Amino acid sequence: MTTAANPYGFDRPHLLGIEGLSKPEILDLLDRAEAFVDIERQKNRRRDTLAGRTQINLFFENSTRTQSSFELAGKRLGADVMNMAVSQSSVKKGETLIDTAMTLNAMNPDVIVVRHHASGAVALLAQKVDCSVVNAGDGSHEHPTQALLDALTIRRHKGRIERLTVAICGDVAHSRVARSNILLLTALDARVRLVGPSTLVPGAFRDMGLEVTTSMKDGLKDADIVMMLRLQRERMQGSFVPSVREYFRYWGLDEEKLAYAKPDALVMHPGPMNRGVEIDPAVADGPQSLIREQVEMGVAVRMAVLEAVVAGRGNGAEAVR
Amino acid sequence: MTTAANPYGFDRPHLLGIEGLSKPEILDLLDRAEAFVDIERQKNRRRDTLAGRTQINLFFENSTRTQSSFELAGKRLGADVMNMAVSQSSVKKGETLIDTAMTLNAMNPDVIVVRHHASGAVALLAQKVDCSVVNAGDGSHEHPTQALLDALTIRRHKGRIERLTVAICGDVAHSRVARSNILLLTALDARVRLVGPSTLVPGAFRDMGLEVTTSMKDGLKDADIVMMLRLQRERMQGSFVPSVREYFRYWGLDEEKLAYAKPDALVMHPGPMNRGVEIDPAVADGPQSLIREQVEMGVAVRMAVLEAVVAGRGNGAEAVR
Amino acid sequence: MTTAANPYGFDRPHLLGIEGLSKPEILDLLDRAEAFVDIERQKNRRRDTLAGRTQINLFFENSTRTQSSFELAGKRLGADVMNMAVSQSSVKKGETLIDTAMTLNAMNPDVIVVRHHASGAVALLAQKVDCSVVNAGDGSHEHPTQALLDALTIRRHKGRIERLTVAICGDVAHSRVARSNILLLTALDARVRLVGPSTLVPGAFRDMGLEVTTSMKDGLKDADIVMMLRLQRERMQGSFVPSVREYFRYWGLDEEKLAYAKPDALVMHPGPMNRGVEIDPAVADGPQSLIREQVEMGVAVRMAVLEAVVAGRGNGAEAVR
Repeated sequence: MTTAANPYGFDRPHLLGIEGLSKPEILDLLDRAEAFVDIERQKNRRRDTLAGRTQINLFFENSTRTQSSFELAGKRLGADVMNMAVSQSSVKKGETLIDTAMTLNAMNPDVIVVRHHASGAVALLAQKVDCSVVNAGDGSHEHPTQALLDALTIRRHKGRIERLTVAICGDVAHSRVARSNILLLTALDARVRLVGPSTLVPGAFRDMGLEVTTSMKDGLKDADIVMMLRLQRERMQGSFVPSVREYFRYWGLDEEKLAYAKPDALVMHPGPMNRGVEIDPAVADGPQSLIREQVEMGVAVRMAVLEAVVAGRGNGAEAVR
Repeated sequence: MTTAANPYGFDRPHLLGIEGLSKPEILDLLDRAEAFVDIERQKNRRRDTLAGRTQINLFFENSTRTQSSFELAGKRLGADVMNMAVSQSSVKKGETLIDTAMTLNAMNPDVIVVRHHASGAVALLAQKVDCSVVNAGDGSHEHPTQALLDALTIRRHKGRIERLTVAICGDVAHSRVARSNILLLTALDARVRLVGPSTLVPGAFRDMGLEVTTSMKDGLKDADIVMMLRLQRERMQGSFVPSVREYFRYWGLDEEKLAYAKPDALVMHPGPMNRGVEIDPAVADGPQSLIREQVEMGVAVRMAVLEAVVAGRGNGAEAVR
Repeated sequence: MTTAANPYGFDRPHLLGIEGLSKPEILDLLDRAEAFVDIERQKNRRRDTLAGRTQINLFFENSTRTQSSFELAGKRLGADVMNMAVSQSSVKKGETLIDTAMTLNAMNPDVIVVRHHASGAVALLAQKVDCSVVNAGDGSHEHPTQALLDALTIRRHKGRIERLTVAICGDVAHSRVARSNILLLTALDARVRLVGPSTLVPGAFRDMGLEVTTSMKDGLKDADIVMMLRLQRERMQGSFVPSVREYFRYWGLDEEKLAYAKPDALVMHPGPMNRGVEIDPAVADGPQSLIREQVEMGVAVRMAVLEAVVAGRGNGAEAVR
């Protein structure tokens, strides 16, 4: 809802990615989410913002964590939430995504939250429906609510995003989390470094002005934030993948490597973690870890996004085509 | 709820099929559903008709589409909706259907929506429980809410059902959708024609006074409505099934065959479609297609049915046996 | 909620087992549940006790029946209920239980209902989270709400628990239902007998002062309650298991064996039944059976427990760690 006090507020019908969002729009979403954190912690939850509204979670990929977070966010706003898990086996033909979308659209939902294994599928779906669409992760493309919750978590601890040094480490090539975070952190004037085996950090990122290194020592030097990525073995087709043991030795975050970063550096991971692969349990559960708080911020960010996109559609009085 | 203004209103505890419903009862359900369409489109949704009531969706067969439609319908009326997917693998013995029903019944629901792979299973279940039962499809027997939503869709576009010529095309033999539609359309004085390969259109229907033909040209002549059926390969045991290519050539609805019907003929399909098998995508997505509107009418019809059967039980003050 | 009138009320944040509960605490939970039975039967359901509260059902083992019962109980109290089925296949490493718990905990739920295949897993989880935890069955350890619903069912029919003779029959060794019932019935001064093949009734129970016998005739003599257990073939690793036919002959409850008990003896089973294995259908569906009423009492008991543990946490204003 754009108000006089917030003239650059997020006011769009969809959230398909961080790409294309302005800095004021990003900050507006973070501010909206921040307000929900306190409400949630006090369990003094308001209930009626999305009352009578329908949210459909359409997940073509399994994700207990993200789906739960969106489900809770919608329910806490009073929405009716319907989960639809669509197994990939039942999706054989290209047109099925659109048929499924059109069918759901005809049921007059207010917002569809979509996760799909193909990059770009969510944007395609958004063109076909009358309701709001939120991207909950599409292929190796974007996962915008993850980037927003990461930024909210950072800002709550460091007081700002700009001029922080953030090292994003691991399997950058296959990570929509990395891509959305790079876009968001850059938009908010953070300094982003990418660290990982050369096969997993495409050189193309160098052209975006990012520092790229294969060395954790170089990459973590003076970092304020160390953001570890999940090793996505299921998405690595044809790439060289080192053994888990070798991977951990060179790129797994343990206390020794963390010492390269600033003493007050904070550690993040989008989850679920491969403990002992990309991160040592001692670091994951250690005093510098924000991993659990990221999950909490996830619910608040999704509440903010759901409320914003539904409000962004106006009063929803449009008829279905 | 039968009122003075509507002395023939639908006033039964169950909806097990179209068979046995009177014409006034069918019209009453259509009128109730019609009222919900506008409420839904304005998103000015009322919420409390079934507040405090419990609806259980008990699906022994998978059906994302129908289950979602019933789930949304119940939630929009304010009911607590619980989904129970019972895989066939866990149902080995005959008594399990009844044990499951008795268990659910003991939890004091107000209505159970049932889909089952065996014809007659839903009626059997209705005899054993104290709550209302709605048939969401049983074997090759009936799928009454589909016939009601089809009739509502037709009536909204043609202004009436009576004296319309409706061609039901394809795999009539295995289709509960066809069966419920034949019963409903006949009750409302439409002229029903059945079109399809002779192995898929049992001659027995001829005895009901229906026109039966294997020729799409003859069957579609002067038709107001062309209702395509899904080719149910999973239910065809022992029948002759032509190849998909051959099937499409003779009985698949394309623009050429549609031209046999009236110029303002409308095309329907219960979904999910086998595109390129029983229907050409150009027709499915074309200007004469009502397929998406059928889905929208589905939610309105199910709201009407759920409200009617729960009201039909009286105030629900009966104790569990 | 402890009041002046009920100074020993159940006032704990968790319900992990019957073990350690005092007699007044057990009676308090039964009284709370009793009050819900009438409300439920009149369908005059109150809705707001847990409004704005979040309940997560975290089931590592499949259980349609118990999960449904908890889901309905929570929804009837107005809670937002989220189901999370975690397949065992996705749980390969020991830490995953804790990671899952921590992730859910970070979402600020009020209560997590947990079923897990390992004895003690639920208590471990309760140590890690800030919210209330209810044990919905852990390995061969406890299933406290089952014992409570059994006691409520008995008390409603016999007017009391104390001094009744209860024969618990069958696979006692692998049964968390038996264990919780033994603890509860003993705490309420019932006389408990264990009956079954010697391989399935560990002699250790004799040390608790319980009568143990392999003979149904001896075990059922003068019994007020005959409580049959489900034969848990999936949990019998390395034990001697008689054939189903032989088992039914010696330990299956049929009308002939039931005649050994008092003429007004009542029959119970936690479900789902193996008909013809541990119980004859004629007895299961006969006039002495309370099996269906047990299911109904299950919802009432779970409502009471959910309300009590959430209230037992105070106003829930604590922040997440």
